[in-house]
Amino acid sequence: MTTPTTTTVIVGGVAGGMSTAARLRRRDETMEIIVLEASGHVSFANCGLPYHVSGVIPERSSLLLQTPDALRDRFNLDVRVNHRVTAVDRANQTVTVRDETDGREFTQAYDHLVLSPGATPVRPPIPGIERALTLRTVEDVDAIIASLDENVHSVAVVGGGFIGLELAENLRHRDLNVTVLERGDQIMAPLDPEMAALVTDHLREHGVTVETGADATEITADGVRLADGRHIDADLVIAAIGVTPESSLARAAGLKIGERGGISVDDQLRTSDPAIFALGDAAEKRDAVSGEDTLVPLAQTANRHGRLVADIITGRDVSRTATLGTAIVGIFGLAAASVGWNEKRARTAGRDIRLIHVHPVDHAGYYPGAEMLHLKLVVDAATDAILGAQAVGMGGVDKRIDVIATAMRAGLTATDLADLELAYAPQFGSAKDPVNMLGFVNDNIINGEKTMQWHEVADAVADGWTLVDVRTPEEFNAGTIPGAINLPLDDLRERRDELAGRRALVFCRVGQRGHVAASLLGQLGVTVANLDGGFLTWSSLNAGIR
Amino acid sequence: MTTPTTTTVIVGGVAGGMSTAARLRRRDETMEIIVLEASGHVSFANCGLPYHVSGVIPERSSLLLQTPDALRDRFNLDVRVNHRVTAVDRANQTVTVRDETDGREFTQAYDHLVLSPGATPVRPPIPGIERALTLRTVEDVDAIIASLDENVHSVAVVGGGFIGLELAENLRHRDLNVTVLERGDQIMAPLDPEMAALVTDHLREHGVTVETGADATEITADGVRLADGRHIDADLVIAAIGVTPESSLARAAGLKIGERGGISVDDQLRTSDPAIFALGDAAEKRDAVSGEDTLVPLAQTANRHGRLVADIITGRDVSRTATLGTAIVGIFGLAAASVGWNEKRARTAGRDIRLIHVHPVDHAGYYPGAEMLHLKLVVDAATDAILGAQAVGMGGVDKRIDVIATAMRAGLTATDLADLELAYAPQFGSAKDPVNMLGFVNDNIINGEKTMQWHEVADAVADGWTLVDVRTPEEFNAGTIPGAINLPLDDLRERRDELAGRRALVFCRVGQRGHVAASLLGQLGVTVANLDGGFLTWSSLNAGIR
Repeated sequence: MTTPTTTTVIVGGVAGGMSTAARLRRRDETMEIIVLEASGHVSFANCGLPYHVSGVIPERSSLLLQTPDALRDRFNLDVRVNHRVTAVDRANQTVTVRDETDGREFTQAYDHLVLSPGATPVRPPIPGIERALTLRTVEDVDAIIASLDENVHSVAVVGGGFIGLELAENLRHRDLNVTVLERGDQIMAPLDPEMAALVTDHLREHGVTVETGADATEITADGVRLADGRHIDADLVIAAIGVTPESSLARAAGLKIGERGGISVDDQLRTSDPAIFALGDAAEKRDAVSGEDTLVPLAQTANRHGRLVADIITGRDVSRTATLGTAIVGIFGLAAASVGWNEKRARTAGRDIRLIHVHPVDHAGYYPGAEMLHLKLVVDAATDAILGAQAVGMGGVDKRIDVIATAMRAGLTATDLADLELAYAPQFGSAKDPVNMLGFVNDNIINGEKTMQWHEVADAVADGWTLVDVRTPEEFNAGTIPGAINLPLDDLRERRDELAGRRALVFCRVGQRGHVAASLLGQLGVTVANLDGGFLTWSSLNAGIR
Repeated sequence: MTTPTTTTVIVGGVAGGMSTAARLRRRDETMEIIVLEASGHVSFANCGLPYHVSGVIPERSSLLLQTPDALRDRFNLDVRVNHRVTAVDRANQTVTVRDETDGREFTQAYDHLVLSPGATPVRPPIPGIERALTLRTVEDVDAIIASLDENVHSVAVVGGGFIGLELAENLRHRDLNVTVLERGDQIMAPLDPEMAALVTDHLREHGVTVETGADATEITADGVRLADGRHIDADLVIAAIGVTPESSLARAAGLKIGERGGISVDDQLRTSDPAIFALGDAAEKRDAVSGEDTLVPLAQTANRHGRLVADIITGRDVSRTATLGTAIVGIFGLAAASVGWNEKRARTAGRDIRLIHVHPVDHAGYYPGAEMLHLKLVVDAATDAILGAQAVGMGGVDKRIDVIATAMRAGLTATDLADLELAYAPQFGSAKDPVNMLGFVNDNIINGEKTMQWHEVADAVADGWTLVDVRTPEEFNAGTIPGAINLPLDDLRERRDELAGRRALVFCRVGQRGHVAASLLGQLGVTVANLDGGFLTWSSLNAGIR
C-alpha cells in the first residue's frame, strides 16, 4: 500500500458518511479514510426499518447493505462500528474516540473531519417516556420486534409524521390494534389539512385509529395519558415524534450551530471550521424557496451531499443546490407526497399566493384501474413561481411530484406546467396530464377567472354570494354544500336569468365543470367565482359552513 | 341565443379539433363553432382502440368520450359527424362539405378555419394490400373485432411501431398466434437498437413472434410474402406501418405543405393563410432539439395545441413550445419510453455526443418487487445539453422519462440531473434515483472517466485493449464477453501488476463496479476505460466481437 497522504475522519457511517467515504476513495486512492459509527451497523437501510417490523421486508439481513469487511475489500476503508466520537480537538485536529465494546478511548488525528452523525428521535420530557420505544437504528427495530410478543395486542404510536404512519401500517399488518396520537390538528405536517385529511381517512379505512389534538402527557404502564385527561390503552408505546439533529459533538467543539439546532454549513458544506464538514440530518440545509437555513432530514440529500463533500475535499469547486424537501410516504397502498412549501408555510411567510386543487384520474379514465389523484399547487401570485405542491392518491403520485420538483429546481413557472410534454399511453397518464391541468387552471386564473378556496366559502356566503351547484340533480341530491342551489351546467344558458343580480360561487365535483360554468356566466355578465377543487376539496374536511 | 359574431369551422373532431372547440366556447360565448368530422364519431379514445380488441377495455362505449348531443348541451357546439370537408375556397372563406350519409353537399362560410383532420394509416402499394386491415378509428376497431371469428387463429401485424406492438399484445390476449413483421433492423424506431432488443425479448417471452428485416412485398390470401421469399402464414393481416398526415385538403387549397408532408404552420399554428390554422397529426411541429419542422403524431400535443389555437383565435398572444416527442408504450407489463433524440438521430445530425446507460432497480432493492430499469441518456458533449433519453422496464419508466422531459423543457443540463431532488421512500425510488445516477455518470465522464459503448468493444480489442471483467468469478464463469480476463474488483489492488503496461477496458454487470475499478486503476497509472452500461448493455444485442 501507498503511504497515506492525508487522513479524513468521518463521523457516522450511514447515508451521508458512507457516500462520502466511497466517493473519497474513488477520487483519491492514497488518502486514509476512517469511518467511525456509534451504532453496530453501517450503511443500513434506514428507510426500510418500518417494513421489517411487519415482515414486508422479511430478512433482517437485507437491511444491512454493507459490512466493514466488504467496505475494506472494495474501497480500502477503515470502518469501525461501535465507535463513538466523544470530542473534537480543533486546535490539534484530533478526535477522541470511545470503543463502545470495551470502553477503550483513543485519539485520532485528521486533516479533514466530516460530521454525519444523523439525528436522534425526539423524546419529550414527560413521565414514563423511558417506557416508549423509538425507531432509528437496526437495534431499535430489533427491540420493537422483540417487544411484540403474544401479550401485545395494541400499540400507541405517538406522532403522525412519516415514520409514525409507516409504523402504524406495519403494525396493522401484524393484526395489532394501532392508535396514532398526533398533537397537532392534522397528521403529516408537510401537507395542508385538506390534503392530510385524505390520508387520515385512508388510515381509518384500514383500521388505524387516528387521534388528532392528542397531546401525550404521560406514558403509563398500560398506555398514554393525554392532556385532555383521556387515557389511550396500549400494550406498547412507540414515540415517533420526529428527530432532532445530532449536533452535540459539534456544539461542544464550538462549531457554529444554526437557529434550528443543526450544524451550520456554507454552500460547500463547510462548518465554521474550514477543516470540518457536516452533512446529512445533523446539518442544516438551504431552503430552495426562501434561501434560509432549514432542517430537511432526508436520505436523498444526505447521499447527494456525501458525494459533494468528497468532491470538495478532493479539490473540486462545486456547491450544493438548495433543498426542496421532496418527500413521499406510502400507507396501505396510498401515496402522499410533497415538495417545497405548503399553503400554511406560504401564508406564515406572508406571501401572496395562488392555490390550485385538481382531482383528475391518474391515467386515462377509459383504461381499467384509473384512480383519482389529488393534487395541490402553491404558486407565488406575483411571480408565477411554483412554491410547492402536494399529491395524494393510489397511483402516479410520485411521478407528478417528481415532475413538479424538477420544474421547481429548473425555475419553471406554474404556467409552464401546461406545456410539459409527458409520456402518454392510457396505462400511464392522460393526453392532458394532471400536471398539465395545474398549468391550465393557473393560466385561467391569471387570465381573470376568480376562484375561491374551500376555507373561504363560509365568508363568501355570509357576504352574500349565492352557492351554485352546477352538477346534475342526482349528484346534488346525494349531498352538496348546505345552502347551495342546483343549476346544472348543461341548463345554465337557459336558466341564466335565475342568477340575475346575484354573485355566483359555482362549484362542481372537482372544479372542471365549475370552470366551464364560470366561463359562461362571466361572459353573460354574472359576477362569478369557481370553487377551487370543487365539492371534493371542500368536503375533505367537512369544513366551512357545514 | 345571441347572434353569432364570427364563425369558426373546425375540420376534425377528435383530440385537436375538439380541444379547440371546447376552449373556444369557454372563451367566447357568442362565436358560432362548427365541427365537421368525417368519421362517425367525435372525441373517441384513439389511444385506447388496441385495448378494445382484447377486451382489456371491455365496453366499446367507454371509447366514446363525447357525443354531438352532449357537446351541444354543454358547449353549444354544432358538431356533425359523417361530414367530410372536400374543398376550401380561401378567397371566399368557405368550405365545401359532403354529408357522407346522404351524399348531399353544401357550402359553409368561416371567419377562422381550423384544420385538425389527423393522419391516415400508411398502406404500402403492394399487391393484396386491400386485404390488410388498419387501426385508426372506431370503425376500424369494429372491423378488426368482426374479422376475428373462429376461423382466425393467426395474425400477422405488419409494422413494429407503437400501434403494431399494442395490437400484438392485445391479439395475444385473445390466444392468437401473432407475428410482428418489421422491415427495419429493429422494432420501435424511437429507441436505439440495444434498447429495442429488450422489448423484442419481452415480446418473445410472451409468445409473440418478432421478425425484423421482414419486408412485406405481398399480402396473400393466407398471409404475407416477404422480400426474402419467405411466406408468413396468417389468417388475418393488419397493417400498422405508421401514419401519414392528412394534408390533402390543405394541399388542394394551396396551403404550404412542409418537407415531411404535414401542413406547415408557424409558432401560432397559422398556416400560410392567416385565417386558417392547423394542428394535431396533420400539422408539422417544431423539434425541440434541432428547431426544425418535424412530424410528431401524439395526442398530448394535439390537445395542447387545441387549447392554444382557441386562445390565439380569441385574441391571446401565445405561442407553441417546441416538441420533445415524449412517448411511451406498455407491452405485457413492460414499458418502453423515449423523449427527444436517440443516438441514431444524433449521429445522423453529426453531433458530438456522450452516451450513458444505467441499469438500476426502479425502487430500493431491499424493498420487495424491485425491478431493473434500463435507462439511456444522449448528451451533447460540447454543451452538456440533454438531447434525449430512453427507458425500458417493468416499473418507473414513465416517471423517469417524464422527469427528463421536464428537465429538457427547462434547459437543465445532464449534470443537473445529479441534483434533482426526487421523492424517495423504498416503494417509490432510491436515495440515489436512477435519474440522479445518470447525472453522476455524466459528471464522472466530464471529469475525465473514459467510457466506451457496447458497439466500440470489438474495435477496442482489435486495437489492443485488454477486456477486464471485474465481476466475481461466479459471474464471469456464467458468461462474459469473449476474450475477457477476470480480475474481480475486490482483488484489483493486489493484482494490479497483472495490468502493467496494458490498456484495460473494464466492465461489470451494469457499469457501477466498472466505475470503481476505472477510478482505482486510473489512479494506479493504468490507461483504462469503463464499458458503459456494462455486460448487460453489451449483451442486449449479443453484438460486438461475439
